[in-house]
Amino acid sequence: MKRIVILGAGKSSAVLIDFLLAEAQQRGWKVAVGDLDLAAAAARVGSHPAGESFAFDVHDAGDRRQRVQSADLVVSLLPPALHPLVAQDCIASKVHFTSASYVGDDMRQLSEAAERAGVILLNELGVDPGIDHMSAMEKLDSLREQGATITRFETFTGGLVAPQSDDNPWRYKFTWNPRNVVLAGQGVVKFKHNGRYKYIPYHRLFQRYEPLTIPGYGKFEGYPNRDSLKYRGHYGLWDVDTIYRGTLRRPGFCKAWDCLVQLGLTDDSYELEDLDQLTWRDYVNSYLWYDPDASVELKLRAYLKLELNAPEFDKLEWLGLFDKTPVGLSRGTPAQVLQKKLEEKWGMAPDDQDMIAMLHKTEYELDGRREEVQSSMVCVGDDGVRTAMAKTVGLPLAIGALRVLDGTIQRRGVVIPTVKDVYEPVLAELKQHGIEFTDRTTPIDKPGRSA
Amino acid sequence: MKRIVILGAGKSSAVLIDFLLAEAQQRGWKVAVGDLDLAAAAARVGSHPAGESFAFDVHDAGDRRQRVQSADLVVSLLPPALHPLVAQDCIASKVHFTSASYVGDDMRQLSEAAERAGVILLNELGVDPGIDHMSAMEKLDSLREQGATITRFETFTGGLVAPQSDDNPWRYKFTWNPRNVVLAGQGVVKFKHNGRYKYIPYHRLFQRYEPLTIPGYGKFEGYPNRDSLKYRGHYGLWDVDTIYRGTLRRPGFCKAWDCLVQLGLTDDSYELEDLDQLTWRDYVNSYLWYDPDASVELKLRAYLKLELNAPEFDKLEWLGLFDKTPVGLSRGTPAQVLQKKLEEKWGMAPDDQDMIAMLHKTEYELDGRREEVQSSMVCVGDDGVRTAMAKTVGLPLAIGALRVLDGTIQRRGVVIPTVKDVYEPVLAELKQHGIEFTDRTTPIDKPGRSA
Repeated sequence: MKRIVILGAGKSSAVLIDFLLAEAQQRGWKVAVGDLDLAAAAARVGSHPAGESFAFDVHDAGDRRQRVQSADLVVSLLPPALHPLVAQDCIASKVHFTSASYVGDDMRQLSEAAERAGVILLNELGVDPGIDHMSAMEKLDSLREQGATITRFETFTGGLVAPQSDDNPWRYKFTWNPRNVVLAGQGVVKFKHNGRYKYIPYHRLFQRYEPLTIPGYGKFEGYPNRDSLKYRGHYGLWDVDTIYRGTLRRPGFCKAWDCLVQLGLTDDSYELEDLDQLTWRDYVNSYLWYDPDASVELKLRAYLKLELNAPEFDKLEWLGLFDKTPVGLSRGTPAQVLQKKLEEKWGMAPDDQDMIAMLHKTEYELDGRREEVQSSMVCVGDDGVRTAMAKTVGLPLAIGALRVLDGTIQRRGVVIPTVKDVYEPVLAELKQHGIEFTDRTTPIDKPGRSA
Repeated sequence: MKRIVILGAGKSSAVLIDFLLAEAQQRGWKVAVGDLDLAAAAARVGSHPAGESFAFDVHDAGDRRQRVQSADLVVSLLPPALHPLVAQDCIASKVHFTSASYVGDDMRQLSEAAERAGVILLNELGVDPGIDHMSAMEKLDSLREQGATITRFETFTGGLVAPQSDDNPWRYKFTWNPRNVVLAGQGVVKFKHNGRYKYIPYHRLFQRYEPLTIPGYGKFEGYPNRDSLKYRGHYGLWDVDTIYRGTLRRPGFCKAWDCLVQLGLTDDSYELEDLDQLTWRDYVNSYLWYDPDASVELKLRAYLKLELNAPEFDKLEWLGLFDKTPVGLSRGTPAQVLQKKLEEKWGMAPDDQDMIAMLHKTEYELDGRREEVQSSMVCVGDDGVRTAMAKTVGLPLAIGALRVLDGTIQRRGVVIPTVKDVYEPVLAELKQHGIEFTDRTTPIDKPGRSA
């Protein structure tokens, strides 16, 4: 009899918990779900015979250790900063640990102790990070096994709204953390292209997107992430000429978002003056020059060089940036003010469905040929509970936990799923749940061009 | 017999020291000049009968106190952060203190103690801050005394190269701190226009300059400073509709500088990769997209939308940004790399002359009329020692020191020269040394427009 302890019963836990409850019942195992909010944990478990729920405060060290001790494996859905705390208890009690979060320095330092204790600390096993690692490595390893030389690798992920709920001019709604969306790309973007480091300053970032297509889902655009160089080591791509990580949006998004960047509305570095006295129209006007004879709309068009029928203008208008209604905040940075407006306009309706899309573009040389393979995956949410996010985070994590407990995954210490003995069993089972990649291979007859 | 102690004998001290030596000799006073580098102090004093020099280490507290104690007035040319240290000793020994630096919180806190000790801590008595305060207040006070209502105040200062040395396409050389020039305007610019706060993000700043003319010196352009709202209180302009502080450059500078900003070359927030392997051409290329069929020049033109004969392009080319010579730094931020190149190209030659230009634009209503008065001043350096900078910093400071010692200036505590009893005697004597403002008054028949 095995016992799995899940810490955290928040928004994206539903699929994970349902899946593990069902699997546990088949095997005669137990799943215990703890949350600071006992009612939330109890609601997720319901009256399932394999489940139990408990109130859990991660800062109660004694209780935390007991809960960990009672488990064979802990799945942590806690905020990322709390994972090392739980992982330390796991090492002390020789209990396996899994999470969907990035490995930080605190976690990395626990690797040797975990190996000595004979346990795995398996992280980055959600969607991004998670499915991106696994699917990329499956493709790269298989090409290398055939004798191919990888010359370029680009990867894109996006949390978007599903086609059936894609009903606003931006073709975007908030399915992830709104603040991260507003601040995306700030600082400088760095990547490598044909052997050279390339930099894009923030104020040019959303002008440098790449058009992309995913079969069955139409057109997208991808803009570069700040951290394109991050996984070169893990992916075995230290020497690849081009490496690029990006974020997916629907066509038209980047140009319109660039308008907000150009105006200065995404800045989070200073607080606005007299905010409580401003309408949205006044507020936008404070980023435009003074001209008593011109409307805010006209000044904005001139400032951003937007033609009469520019779709960007319609998107800004749809947001209500020219409205004579109060901003309704007494203080805030431009980014906070913008986030408030976007949350009003980009909120998911109760019956909206989300979508996770992922695309890898891998260019290689094999037997004298140059080819590109595009591998894509789209997962659509069932509803507001079994969202694409909950599925793509929860399923890999649940499958990984089972494969650790049944001995398929034998590694110990801090692990991320870029290794074959982890990604192979997880991807195989994800496929049975409809999360799978489709490949398109095309020959290349001249040097590639993008970004 | 009075004794003036000058701390610091650096680059901009020559005019100050010469002036005070001559005045002291007439009066039978003494001027003692101290510097960490005794030879520098001795060279400034020469064999002047009223002068003496000494080695001075501001961190030797005992010596510092003795030197202060020996004086009736201390003029500090030390780095701004060290002024409060000296000012505290001045209070303890009841010695007056003057500097050309901004009043920080540390200095402001000494005001009451100085008043109790019966001494003045007279700061911001150089050019900017200094002459700008005095000339602005003289104009504003005189208009108000006539019954005028001030409706707009704009002020611009620039450290530039004199017309006779104005011989490069940028029409600019470094006469002030190069790093400050490279980083100018970073963050957000805030000012007030017709009663509304206005914001300009950095990446748009150098596109929002204002054309200006100074009689006898031709055309300039002014771009806004970050801190336009800073002196509203001191200037009595809390309620003015428009207030704007800016920096003067020669025409064409801002558009060309904006190219550097657009490329991302002024960023000081990250270090570049593999810098020691790059030529200037490679380095610029790392901010442009990849295209094996296009030259760096062509890609840059396309990225910045520069036409064939765009003068901005010629300025970039003149800097050598397309050269195949190594950058010659092993590490650095973009701003540091750019500064190195600019110091090579914008250095003052030994016989170059500098220039300080200042312009105030004041709009007011008086007896039912609306008028604007433009007050301008230009000071040209004599040579590489008696620079415009040394004159416009040194003369007000020297005159202020004399007027404190002869009892014309009676105020005590922390003072800046926005008050009539300070600016009136100082400006009157500056005029005798050729530093004076010329006024042009024009009627206004419609609401003003700028920025």
